[in-house]
Amino acid sequence: MNQKQLLRPRADASVLGAPLAGFNTADAVVYLNHLERERASATLASLPLPRAVKLLEAPELQHAAELVAALPPARAAALLGLMADDRATDIVHELDQDARARLIPLLDPEARRSIQLLLSYPPNTAGALMTTEFVSVPADWTVGQTLQHIREVERNRETVYAIYVLDPDTGQLQQVVTMRRLITGAPDDPILDVAQVNPPVTVGALLDQEEVAQLIRRHDLLAIPVVDAQRQLLGIVTVDDILDALIDESTEDVHKFGGVEALDRPYMQIGFLDMIRKRAGWLSVLFLGEMLTASAMQHYEDALARAVVLTLFIPLIMSSGGNSGSQATSLLIRSLALQELRLRDWWKVAVREVPTGVVLGTILGVLAVIRISVWQLAGLHDYGEHWQLLAVTIGAALVGIVTFGSLSGAMLPFVLKRLGFDPASASAPFVATLVDVTGLVIYFSIAAAILGGTLL
Amino acid sequence: MNQKQLLRPRADASVLGAPLAGFNTADAVVYLNHLERERASATLASLPLPRAVKLLEAPELQHAAELVAALPPARAAALLGLMADDRATDIVHELDQDARARLIPLLDPEARRSIQLLLSYPPNTAGALMTTEFVSVPADWTVGQTLQHIREVERNRETVYAIYVLDPDTGQLQQVVTMRRLITGAPDDPILDVAQVNPPVTVGALLDQEEVAQLIRRHDLLAIPVVDAQRQLLGIVTVDDILDALIDESTEDVHKFGGVEALDRPYMQIGFLDMIRKRAGWLSVLFLGEMLTASAMQHYEDALARAVVLTLFIPLIMSSGGNSGSQATSLLIRSLALQELRLRDWWKVAVREVPTGVVLGTILGVLAVIRISVWQLAGLHDYGEHWQLLAVTIGAALVGIVTFGSLSGAMLPFVLKRLGFDPASASAPFVATLVDVTGLVIYFSIAAAILGGTLL
Repeated sequence: MNQKQLLRPRADASVLGAPLAGFNTADAVVYLNHLERERASATLASLPLPRAVKLLEAPELQHAAELVAALPPARAAALLGLMADDRATDIVHELDQDARARLIPLLDPEARRSIQLLLSYPPNTAGALMTTEFVSVPADWTVGQTLQHIREVERNRETVYAIYVLDPDTGQLQQVVTMRRLITGAPDDPILDVAQVNPPVTVGALLDQEEVAQLIRRHDLLAIPVVDAQRQLLGIVTVDDILDALIDESTEDVHKFGGVEALDRPYMQIGFLDMIRKRAGWLSVLFLGEMLTASAMQHYEDALARAVVLTLFIPLIMSSGGNSGSQATSLLIRSLALQELRLRDWWKVAVREVPTGVVLGTILGVLAVIRISVWQLAGLHDYGEHWQLLAVTIGAALVGIVTFGSLSGAMLPFVLKRLGFDPASASAPFVATLVDVTGLVIYFSIAAAILGGTLL
Repeated sequence: MNQKQLLRPRADASVLGAPLAGFNTADAVVYLNHLERERASATLASLPLPRAVKLLEAPELQHAAELVAALPPARAAALLGLMADDRATDIVHELDQDARARLIPLLDPEARRSIQLLLSYPPNTAGALMTTEFVSVPADWTVGQTLQHIREVERNRETVYAIYVLDPDTGQLQQVVTMRRLITGAPDDPILDVAQVNPPVTVGALLDQEEVAQLIRRHDLLAIPVVDAQRQLLGIVTVDDILDALIDESTEDVHKFGGVEALDRPYMQIGFLDMIRKRAGWLSVLFLGEMLTASAMQHYEDALARAVVLTLFIPLIMSSGGNSGSQATSLLIRSLALQELRLRDWWKVAVREVPTGVVLGTILGVLAVIRISVWQLAGLHDYGEHWQLLAVTIGAALVGIVTFGSLSGAMLPFVLKRLGFDPASASAPFVATLVDVTGLVIYFSIAAAILGGTLL
């Protein structure tokens, strides 16, 4: 079988591709996602190349890498070569070593070069997100020359709405021209006449995607150029790539905050064992941490035996610490992600969280004292002769624990960031576990101080 | 003072605006954010109108509405009239009744009409996000006519990269032309020659912004048209508005999941009392719910007095239920937000969560049995003569509680959605509280069954 045959639609094309004829890309992707892996791959193989490229580029297509791996290698390489290089890189990134080794040598040299460049950047950075398919022109061109150039290359560029003007001698990025300004120029005008006045906003290839998103948003851009130390243009990150990245990241953040490893595909499509693996890890780690509560309780077993009434409020007190901690964590995770706060601002936050925690703890403490008094006085439950002291103990413990919970919940994202982790890894269950053990110690210490000599 | 004077920069313009002269918009916004409210407003008043408009349109500018309210009314109205109508609407939306009543009559009629239209849509919908400043042309125009029209109106349009082609008789939306295709056409070509083949993807004005984002992403659009039932074009939602909306929404979602009312401004800028208010509400509600644990414990007080050893494991067991619940909730919140799952799929999820919970609970149960056995056999703690039965009780309770936690955590977002709430309101603390009370009942029931006659 020679290469030409591989690139041509196969004999059964009319049968396999037929149901797709009337579909737009989004609908065709839904259809492919519902087919078995093998059949979907055969369908992709049977479609005309441009159509297949469009489908593979759709972010909603599932198992794209596996579909590509199942194609005849020459056809797979042809498709990857025609795809936008950032999307092609995503697919190559997910291929196993074998498939990668098989396909990369078959790529045309230009595609191979840009895919290998993009593969070299860590995930979630500007470099990994960018495309090398941008429009650039030398600074000595005219508006007319530029427009003509765009008409010629338009089909192979991810966006043509930002045009990058390079110094003709050094190749350094000099200015950016937007298409909306370009079309207002006369054909003979120098391109720099329609360029923006301010120097272009650029990013380095290793900048985190969330910061790239912030810059794109702040400067209202459709794309942001990625440059190296010599101001050579490496690529551009477009707003739609950032949109995809942010949607994925916000899913990841919610998963992490819930204490699960981020799922890389929709809930219903994860295998049962995979699902267990994603959840059991953190759940077991938290469980091992929470075992310290059993040890703490053992330490106070004598006190508990003497005053069983103290145990009645353990769940109530501990959950309040965890809840106030998870509130504070959620606030600080976002503040750090949005760069409203820097690492060095931790003490400003600490200084706010302590009085906040005291007030919140006092509110809950008052509620608890009311609850105990009402039950006791209305005869709903008998907390014993020292019920007033008990109520004071519970109230005071709540102030201490909620303050401690707010403070540690707020500091946790800073600690994680300082240690080089993503602050968003601070999950609600993690905070709760952290606060639970200390919460018990606070509770029993306060109980010993207030009830010593009476109940204890 | 007549209107002309108000619109002209004031006498001290050179002083107030001076530091801004060399700044680009983003930097100028940072500068304004650091000024006192009154001074920032005076600075805005002193700038040339186009500059002031740019700053007011920046999504990063804080307290924009208050700054506008503090301007001389005629100048405020002039600025609002020149701003992109969606941004102007955001500001008007935040003004208090008085300021609104004062400013709206001063707006020029066109701006007033579009702001009042946009104000009429509920927040977070396509209607509230859209701009009415788009480019539309009749279907019988040529490429050249269209380009000329764009050159004339370009400065007053939010985007010119998607051109909406309307039926010349009915005014209905007929096709979309992208700028990149438009410039490939010859000036005399009919505009429809360069239009897309597929009918345009449109949305209704009441569609939720997250669904709008999904459509924009799936179809790789720079803007999506919003139409009414008669296919009349009401406005367009651009990808950068969606980007802003999504960043805000993901902050809100994390806050809600942490159990806080969403903050509407950065952490350090919320007043102390506001911060207490945003947190105390949910914290108190959760506390009242969690009081049920005290009631449940009271119910089992006799059992606790007889077997104090049972209390040692209460925090461990309860937190495991909460943790597994918060995992499941975080997974389902995102699946519902991304529309991977519909309301009617709840039973498919339930059918998955029960076996998942059983396996996860068994893993934790085995860990607990090992922990108790090791401590007992190594002499680290004496759990009494029935320690084997105790270990079995703890293990079995974990299976029951983790299964219950996973199932209820997964169902909660569905229940909220069914009741018309945002599934993302299901917070980790809320799930934990829900599971805690039931968890205690499960624990003591299993204890009674296994330990009845021995310890109990």
